[in-house]
Amino acid sequence: MANNFKEASVDEITQVMQQAQTAFEAYQQTSIEQKSVFLEAIAAEIEALGDGLLQKASEETNLPIPRLTGERARTTGQLRMFATMLREGSWVEASIDTANPDRAPLPKPDVRKMLTPLGPVVVFGASNFPFAYSTAGGDTASALAAGCPVVVKAHPAHAETSEMVYSAIKKAIVSSNMPGHIFQHVHGTSFESGKALVQADETAAVGFTGSTVGGLALLQYSSQRKKPIPVFSEMGSINPVVFLPDTLNKNAADLAAQYAGSITLGMGQFCTNPGLMLAIEGDGLYSFLDSLGKGIEAIKPAKMLHAGIHTAYQKKSHEALAQDGVKVIQKSAVEAQDIEALPTVALVSGKTFLANPLLHEEVFGPYSLMVNCKDEQELLKVLKSVSGQLTTTVMGTDEDFAAHKALLQLLPSIAGRVLFNGVPTGVEVCHSMVHGGPFPATTDSRFTAVGTNAVKRWVRPVCYQNCPDGLLPLALQNANPLGIWRLVDNEWKK
Amino acid sequence: MANNFKEASVDEITQVMQQAQTAFEAYQQTSIEQKSVFLEAIAAEIEALGDGLLQKASEETNLPIPRLTGERARTTGQLRMFATMLREGSWVEASIDTANPDRAPLPKPDVRKMLTPLGPVVVFGASNFPFAYSTAGGDTASALAAGCPVVVKAHPAHAETSEMVYSAIKKAIVSSNMPGHIFQHVHGTSFESGKALVQADETAAVGFTGSTVGGLALLQYSSQRKKPIPVFSEMGSINPVVFLPDTLNKNAADLAAQYAGSITLGMGQFCTNPGLMLAIEGDGLYSFLDSLGKGIEAIKPAKMLHAGIHTAYQKKSHEALAQDGVKVIQKSAVEAQDIEALPTVALVSGKTFLANPLLHEEVFGPYSLMVNCKDEQELLKVLKSVSGQLTTTVMGTDEDFAAHKALLQLLPSIAGRVLFNGVPTGVEVCHSMVHGGPFPATTDSRFTAVGTNAVKRWVRPVCYQNCPDGLLPLALQNANPLGIWRLVDNEWKK
Repeated sequence: MANNFKEASVDEITQVMQQAQTAFEAYQQTSIEQKSVFLEAIAAEIEALGDGLLQKASEETNLPIPRLTGERARTTGQLRMFATMLREGSWVEASIDTANPDRAPLPKPDVRKMLTPLGPVVVFGASNFPFAYSTAGGDTASALAAGCPVVVKAHPAHAETSEMVYSAIKKAIVSSNMPGHIFQHVHGTSFESGKALVQADETAAVGFTGSTVGGLALLQYSSQRKKPIPVFSEMGSINPVVFLPDTLNKNAADLAAQYAGSITLGMGQFCTNPGLMLAIEGDGLYSFLDSLGKGIEAIKPAKMLHAGIHTAYQKKSHEALAQDGVKVIQKSAVEAQDIEALPTVALVSGKTFLANPLLHEEVFGPYSLMVNCKDEQELLKVLKSVSGQLTTTVMGTDEDFAAHKALLQLLPSIAGRVLFNGVPTGVEVCHSMVHGGPFPATTDSRFTAVGTNAVKRWVRPVCYQNCPDGLLPLALQNANPLGIWRLVDNEWKK
Repeated sequence: MANNFKEASVDEITQVMQQAQTAFEAYQQTSIEQKSVFLEAIAAEIEALGDGLLQKASEETNLPIPRLTGERARTTGQLRMFATMLREGSWVEASIDTANPDRAPLPKPDVRKMLTPLGPVVVFGASNFPFAYSTAGGDTASALAAGCPVVVKAHPAHAETSEMVYSAIKKAIVSSNMPGHIFQHVHGTSFESGKALVQADETAAVGFTGSTVGGLALLQYSSQRKKPIPVFSEMGSINPVVFLPDTLNKNAADLAAQYAGSITLGMGQFCTNPGLMLAIEGDGLYSFLDSLGKGIEAIKPAKMLHAGIHTAYQKKSHEALAQDGVKVIQKSAVEAQDIEALPTVALVSGKTFLANPLLHEEVFGPYSLMVNCKDEQELLKVLKSVSGQLTTTVMGTDEDFAAHKALLQLLPSIAGRVLFNGVPTGVEVCHSMVHGGPFPATTDSRFTAVGTNAVKRWVRPVCYQNCPDGLLPLALQNANPLGIWRLVDNEWKK
């Protein structure tokens, strides 16, 4: 994927990472308030770029302006959310165990713990979110909030948009009086530049959003390092949705309308796209498929993000549809032109799905496969056969839930987020969100890429033993000068 | 390292891991109270083994009975601590963001998050803690508490002790009515059995305590897996201790007595042993060295854990002492016999230390090297030159601390635990303890191996979106039936 920017050389990357390390030391001397103001300034400078930013992003990604307007709001909202989190302060997980000098046989020391930043974080943004998962997206915002310098490799598919966002961050660095290299931006279209970024001595952690191939390559580069570092790759998912019998019988048309929309939202270019549906054979299912087909037929093709993604969609969807036993339910009634994607839903039996691993693979685009299971046992088997997922969803009535206990127990074991009677597309940015999940959804299921807890990827705990009060970080001092929630001798206190 | 037990074959390990996976599913159906009772039963059954267990461990490890008595108490204490943690319940980090159906442009869903177990955990225990970091040690206790089945590879150096502890766990499994394979025990003296355990499909995480070579081998095996898993290797440390000038001038004799004890405690066979000391040249330092020499001279050699560790100590200490510019301060006055270790302290200049990486390596045993720095700048340089550490300690008066701000800022960047006016040997088991640190102290600085937070290595977050209240796990239900601390709409509540 070529663009007009010069590829960073390995030497340049070495220098960038050394500068990041120097900035790390300076950044640790800035106050919580200064960091918060900095994050807010980035948000304001992005807004100040105005419609020009939206137009550039739309040109580069083919995403419509209203969608990009919403994504920009999410991006600036995330930056401000992390500023609020910093000021609120309890994210550092301060905990205090006070001393007991009289304990026998040994006195109990005073031990206090909090989270501290890891160091320079390298971020590889996503093609499908030019704002929210890119240059100033969730990885960058959470790492800067954590106290880590950030180096972003611009996504080649929207490198000019990335440059514009970078210009906004540079202005914020100046106006907030931050270390000049607290955020740096490099271009690269090759795996070599990614390798150099991951393998630099100073790199302390990596955040990636994108394809399985890309995410695993970074993990592989990292495993060749002398000093291991955490790599958080978020690599997508087929997001299984189970439709239970009673709701299919009662609500087939409504469910179909909801899912025709979710499958084709943003031309299916979401990692939470419902690429797999499961149901038990019956009239409810056929009625649902009939309505779903009509819904899909009515949805017009639209341009995908770039030619590479379109080619992959063509290849993967044709491959899936060519498998024995796979039947097209419906495609869009309008022919796809150029790099447009053709919305498509297909049907396969549980038995065939279980026997053919190719059908388990993600088809990134407006595509979903319904697995027609002969009974609940087969449905559970199908669900167990798919790998780790970002989300899994169950659609059902109270009667359904009462009748399918084993299914409900299984769901949390395969995904980071379990939804009830909704669609997986759309990820709420909040404390409790888990946008992560067992491999291959991510490389480390213990963390989330969305929500305030995304900051936890870039920090480690440090404890202080018998430290004089005045020398402790503010978060751990007796008087609680930051006024934050802390676990003090096993009680949460403020 | 040979013993009388049959090495588990790769086929046997495959079967063991499959059994662990089956036990995982059954274990998830047991209640919090059942798991707590199980952990307590293990503690009671270990105590019921009586003096026979202590004698066997002493035979196998050469550790004295009083030390083993203390370690047994710590081990049973840890098991009971995790039972208490389960009943208290807030370790699951329950958080709730309630819905707002009126929010524009999109309604806000109800999202609730908690921690859930990863799956079967493989534990490789330590040679130097036959109870507390072995068969029923901290890794096992925290993994069972998390809800994970455990497979322990017995340490070959105390395989009979491990069998005895295993017999206690088996009794507890029966009396607590737990799945038969919730804990399994295999023998192996080869790297092959370790590899098979790490690479089994069902293995979800690995805990290791021991040498750098062993810990890195497991990480390497894990990097060859198709599905990546977390590997937490705790691999030791040289635990730098900085002695500041004012305290050296005022308290040289007391400091020396404290450190002669810490350096030789348990014949130095602790990962928190103070293997590196730093000070600025001056009369205080010379007076300290004089007293320290007298202290070390008076300490008698004692047998090390096993012949392999003794051989390594001989080799590493001779190698270090043979380096240009390294001078012995003092050795024990008594000759070492058989596999006894000879307590030894040595001295080197800052300049020589900085130029010779071999001097940065751990010498596992009753050995410590004092680095005589010409000024504070050199001392900071020496401290920055050492790699990641479990602990770092500063000894100083208030005057010292006021005069050495840059040093105090540096300390948390190199270690998981920062101590003031104490010794690093001795690790308090509590909420705030961090027994971990940057590589090469561990393979993942984001976690601790000691204290309640050790459980966080074996869990991942799951969130539930718009889940009917009755279908939520108890920890997330509206009425808070477990009565636990939860973050509800950004407020901690009980």
